[in-house]
Amino acid sequence: MKKGKPLILVVNDDGIDSQGINFLKKIMCQIGDVYVVAPDTNRSAYSHSMTLNNSISIKKMNKNVNDFACSGTPVDCVKLALNKILPRTPDLCVSGINHGSNQSINGLYSGTLHAAMEANIQGVPAISFSHLSYETIINFTPFSSFIYDVSKKVLGDSNEGVTFNINFPDVPFKDIKGVKVCLTGQGVWKEKFELVKKEKFEKHFLIGGEFKSNNNLINTDNWALTNNFISIVPVNLYPHLSINLDKLKYLENVF
Amino acid sequence: MKKGKPLILVVNDDGIDSQGINFLKKIMCQIGDVYVVAPDTNRSAYSHSMTLNNSISIKKMNKNVNDFACSGTPVDCVKLALNKILPRTPDLCVSGINHGSNQSINGLYSGTLHAAMEANIQGVPAISFSHLSYETIINFTPFSSFIYDVSKKVLGDSNEGVTFNINFPDVPFKDIKGVKVCLTGQGVWKEKFELVKKEKFEKHFLIGGEFKSNNNLINTDNWALTNNFISIVPVNLYPHLSINLDKLKYLENVF
Repeated sequence: MKKGKPLILVVNDDGIDSQGINFLKKIMCQIGDVYVVAPDTNRSAYSHSMTLNNSISIKKMNKNVNDFACSGTPVDCVKLALNKILPRTPDLCVSGINHGSNQSINGLYSGTLHAAMEANIQGVPAISFSHLSYETIINFTPFSSFIYDVSKKVLGDSNEGVTFNINFPDVPFKDIKGVKVCLTGQGVWKEKFELVKKEKFEKHFLIGGEFKSNNNLINTDNWALTNNFISIVPVNLYPHLSINLDKLKYLENVF
Repeated sequence: MKKGKPLILVVNDDGIDSQGINFLKKIMCQIGDVYVVAPDTNRSAYSHSMTLNNSISIKKMNKNVNDFACSGTPVDCVKLALNKILPRTPDLCVSGINHGSNQSINGLYSGTLHAAMEANIQGVPAISFSHLSYETIINFTPFSSFIYDVSKKVLGDSNEGVTFNINFPDVPFKDIKGVKVCLTGQGVWKEKFELVKKEKFEKHFLIGGEFKSNNNLINTDNWALTNNFISIVPVNLYPHLSINLDKLKYLENVF
């Protein structure tokens, strides 16, 4: 490793073979020394889950390149990267680029965002990148300079306890109006369950569904993305500080 | 179902056979009509993960009792319960009692807390209960009246977007000093990785470790539990509101 060069960890949840992570890796190689540690297959919607009581394998993909495929969750990848693979604590962790939205409530399910959050817990500045298209091949090229610039900015910042959740709207790049730093907008999945098998006392379902969001509230990622802005939501690791605790003190009288 | 009786969903991540969920079910049966929908085996540390692209089975344990074992994650259990099992949206969801701490950063990994949060996303008042002991058999009995009373309070409240994360200290009940409504304290897992198998270019690890927390900050769950209080942390579904967005507006200039 060259002295003084930033050390960057690249992770995702779509798996080490996805287009998004390989595109992100190439940009990071222009900034610093890069290690890729990612799931060996798609592990979308793994959220902040980790593997207990089972072993996790980690495989170097090529002896000359620092790419590692992991049998565990996105969060397992980060834990192994920081403790067993990288030569020191990295200067930045970037996760993605996810194929699909992590706006609104989707971030709660996302392994991509939570991998970045896990790095942030360990004190590493962290960004999660997602594109609203769910296609396996996406034209990421126009976003290169934005990704490069925002990564360099966050690399130099001290935003302790904050992970940046960045989403790109699925519109032609020429129509993108700019960037909004904003809040997580409200949303919910209206699930549909396909009954795939039925036995006595037992049923088997496949979960699908449709994402419903409130896009009217200005200052939210839903609004920004609907109006062709890139959204940046700073996610706090300690999701409580905005609540008025005094209003809830009456619960202390229950005991 | 009797008219006017509350409908209550009971979930957990330790599995349908754990002592904690069966204890919680008994108390809830004193309050309303109860459905138990829980993982068929231990799924601790599954966080907010859900199952995509694989079917999930749901099995009625006994034709006369509303207990259902599910092959999916704790969040899958809640989604299936609300959409496919319960006769209507429940009036309350309680999760646990978890065998082990969900204080501090542990809540982020916890399937117990996130099952309650998933119900809350769907508009259901929700509480997660955890005991700091990791034993499979715990003396929960002294907590009965507190659990009954706090559940009745939350059942009647309107705290939209807030899930209550309640932890019991692992001390003799007579030493418990009361209840604190508080914030999530800071903490981190210092992991240890046991190398269980080594091949060319591939290693297999088991994750273990030790939880390190800052217990000095009054007004946090770490402080409350260390000082023999029951902790109640209101968790916000939208973990961003406490961040000063204006300070981060410079990132909008990157584009």
